[in-house]
Amino acid sequence: MLQPEVRRELIAIVGESYMKDDMQSLVTHSYDGTPMLQSLPDAVIYPYNTQQVSEVMKVLNRQRIPVIGRGSGTNLCGGTVPIQGGVVMVMHRMNQILEVDLENLTALVQPGLNTKHFTTHVEQLGLFYPPDPSSMSISTIGGNIAECSGGLRGLKYGTTKDYVIGLEAVLANGDIIRTGGKLMKDVAGYDLTKLLVGSEGTLAIITEATLKLVPPPKYKKTMLAMYKDLNGAARTVSKIIENLIIPATLEILDNSTIRVVDAFANLGLPLHMEAILLIEQDGDMESVERDIASITAICNSEQAEQISVAESAEEAERLLTARRSAFTALARLRPTTILEDATVPRSKIADMIMEINRIAAKHQVQICTFGHAGDGNLHPTALTDARNADEIHRVEAAFEEIFEAAISLGGTITGEHGVGMVKAPFLEWKIGKSGIEVMKAIKQSFDPFNILNPGKVFAKESRKRVVIDRG
Amino acid sequence: MLQPEVRRELIAIVGESYMKDDMQSLVTHSYDGTPMLQSLPDAVIYPYNTQQVSEVMKVLNRQRIPVIGRGSGTNLCGGTVPIQGGVVMVMHRMNQILEVDLENLTALVQPGLNTKHFTTHVEQLGLFYPPDPSSMSISTIGGNIAECSGGLRGLKYGTTKDYVIGLEAVLANGDIIRTGGKLMKDVAGYDLTKLLVGSEGTLAIITEATLKLVPPPKYKKTMLAMYKDLNGAARTVSKIIENLIIPATLEILDNSTIRVVDAFANLGLPLHMEAILLIEQDGDMESVERDIASITAICNSEQAEQISVAESAEEAERLLTARRSAFTALARLRPTTILEDATVPRSKIADMIMEINRIAAKHQVQICTFGHAGDGNLHPTALTDARNADEIHRVEAAFEEIFEAAISLGGTITGEHGVGMVKAPFLEWKIGKSGIEVMKAIKQSFDPFNILNPGKVFAKESRKRVVIDRG
Repeated sequence: MLQPEVRRELIAIVGESYMKDDMQSLVTHSYDGTPMLQSLPDAVIYPYNTQQVSEVMKVLNRQRIPVIGRGSGTNLCGGTVPIQGGVVMVMHRMNQILEVDLENLTALVQPGLNTKHFTTHVEQLGLFYPPDPSSMSISTIGGNIAECSGGLRGLKYGTTKDYVIGLEAVLANGDIIRTGGKLMKDVAGYDLTKLLVGSEGTLAIITEATLKLVPPPKYKKTMLAMYKDLNGAARTVSKIIENLIIPATLEILDNSTIRVVDAFANLGLPLHMEAILLIEQDGDMESVERDIASITAICNSEQAEQISVAESAEEAERLLTARRSAFTALARLRPTTILEDATVPRSKIADMIMEINRIAAKHQVQICTFGHAGDGNLHPTALTDARNADEIHRVEAAFEEIFEAAISLGGTITGEHGVGMVKAPFLEWKIGKSGIEVMKAIKQSFDPFNILNPGKVFAKESRKRVVIDRG
Repeated sequence: MLQPEVRRELIAIVGESYMKDDMQSLVTHSYDGTPMLQSLPDAVIYPYNTQQVSEVMKVLNRQRIPVIGRGSGTNLCGGTVPIQGGVVMVMHRMNQILEVDLENLTALVQPGLNTKHFTTHVEQLGLFYPPDPSSMSISTIGGNIAECSGGLRGLKYGTTKDYVIGLEAVLANGDIIRTGGKLMKDVAGYDLTKLLVGSEGTLAIITEATLKLVPPPKYKKTMLAMYKDLNGAARTVSKIIENLIIPATLEILDNSTIRVVDAFANLGLPLHMEAILLIEQDGDMESVERDIASITAICNSEQAEQISVAESAEEAERLLTARRSAFTALARLRPTTILEDATVPRSKIADMIMEINRIAAKHQVQICTFGHAGDGNLHPTALTDARNADEIHRVEAAFEEIFEAAISLGGTITGEHGVGMVKAPFLEWKIGKSGIEVMKAIKQSFDPFNILNPGKVFAKESRKRVVIDRG
């Protein structure tokens, strides 16, 4: 609980209605999209502008009170769980599109802006903001920036990082900094913009962002290819890239996912397939048609059993449903769904999926795998039950081996979900002791009293590696 | 001069032939591509591998001896001038392409690798590494990474930062860190990769880089458009982008540059034109032809006096000569050429060129302007004489006002050349006091004894702003 004096100070800044510490508000902000994590904050605060954020930070920094910046809390790494209590700062009142600059192809937005609302708005202006995390109808741009969110279009268009070109942010001490701008190029000092993107609320509170927009593709085509052999699907992924075709979307669903999705959405998917690839290409009509023809030939050369190319937008939508409904379909099967995002070089997709299946069998847990094959970013998803301690223990052991396998294949523990609490114990596996030390020193330099989202990114203790390095 | 004991230690690490402190070696490494800056180092060292770099760093860190990492020294910001003496570490022996991975479209290279050699090598393999700084036939990849080099293709393809996806680097204390990898996505902790790119040798010595390669464009078309009215040229730039066409190259030459280039290269350019735009588009044939037709229509609508579209590769080459020879042409006119890179939002190109001309007239100095109009990245270039103290003083005053003007237009003091020594006094104008404090804290956290390229990026004293803010 906040001291009465601090409470009064915060109310004086944001007003009585925007500083809540009733039990309902605290419980509502005690968890996020991540299963099995919960911790009550001491208060929830809703700032209206940068000045209020700055004033709040001055109070909290002086009092050494943790502050957890938060949008809609859709993250899957425990990134916004107030693990050490403190104040959850919800950015939903700062949700405006301040400007869309049609001459410079940039937008200036506030962090609490809903992602889907923003992408729809710029599409109506004939522009395109590519990052499309699965949570986009709920998530906020600020949350996307904090986590460096990816999405289905990441392969061709990159992730949130590639579209943030300027930031306004409030430091732990309340100072306001501005980085970058409406500038396609800026090398004036260290790249604080890219450093803040993906820093998970541990370095500063983002209060404004300048985003890069791009011309929308004129034409799009969607196809599915189904394989009895997982390796055929994986080789198709590699061959497409090797043939210098970069599709907008190149997703994979494994057999377990196919079964679950079909049971959920009645798509009539062939249940004996080991893998389905969902492929989309966009751009000018001629080049899209050419790419789709080349991709079809590659699929055939790798013994795809069945290839469907959508002939209409409706049909494309139907094909996309298979991939889009994956998480929802999986989530309804068992009480607890744990979705991970181990990432490997894209040439290692087949190796990784086979490793995941081997590990799942070993630990007797159900893991379905789908994800962004083109980026090597897989989502092994465990269907389990948080109330079954023994099973959860096995799930955790399995994921530990999955992270280990990803690292051994030259990959990483997280491609787009962030470290948060969930992967903090494994960070050292990816970046080493010296890497952790450097990152901790950066954290210390931004936030000497460790009030910004404490307990995230850095674990008290790193997990020991259990498996020998197969790299 | 190094103490004999330190000297012996360094020789023990790299061998007698690769630790030089004869006067010729010292003088050769006392300057870089930047005019009017020179300072002797105490020694020049040529490490052969990461292990040697690490061992050298341990010695230098213990002894608090400055170390200036260096490739070919083509930078224009005094970035590799050993302003506080110490050891210049030349990376030319670490110049190998260690791997080109055709499946993942990545390359693993050493920092001393020549940029042109690398781009040619990957082109021969049917791949494309877009960053093309003007110095690329001399520069190294390590130098490009240190400065985050741009180039003519930046508008469509981005700069060096967009292609570095993994690094190996040696910290001040000799520790070796590895960031990123052959991964299109990686959010495991803070983005050290992007932080090191453009950090100008002040945070670590880069010893290996994983670079992203892309499919080469299949087709290319080049055109020139000439204008009697500078505003017409500038409006053309804005209109092209507003029409959602992103050309591969979109360069501008002002009247002073046109005159000088024509005198140098005998291109028969019309000397009464106020501006020439050089435009290149690449991609699939159909879309390139369509874009070039749309661009031509835009040029006509803005009263371009003359438009030439190259009908052959040779003709394209001839058109490109006008832009490519700009620096060389300017450099031979007067003893000293000072080339800057103030950058503004691309909608402000005309305002900025007019400001530059006004400022040049006010200070009675000759400034020719050319550059990357599409990114708003201009190169105002002063033709002067370092021996004429009074004129140099006026040139410096003019550039100070030019930086001020760029900032006031929402721009930055450097788009692609870096801060180094030259722009350090102006950095605060762009990023503010708090921005400087954050960057200094980051520097301190990487390099507590300030041995990595000391005296760069951060000035002893920031320059006072002389002009009122017109933003």
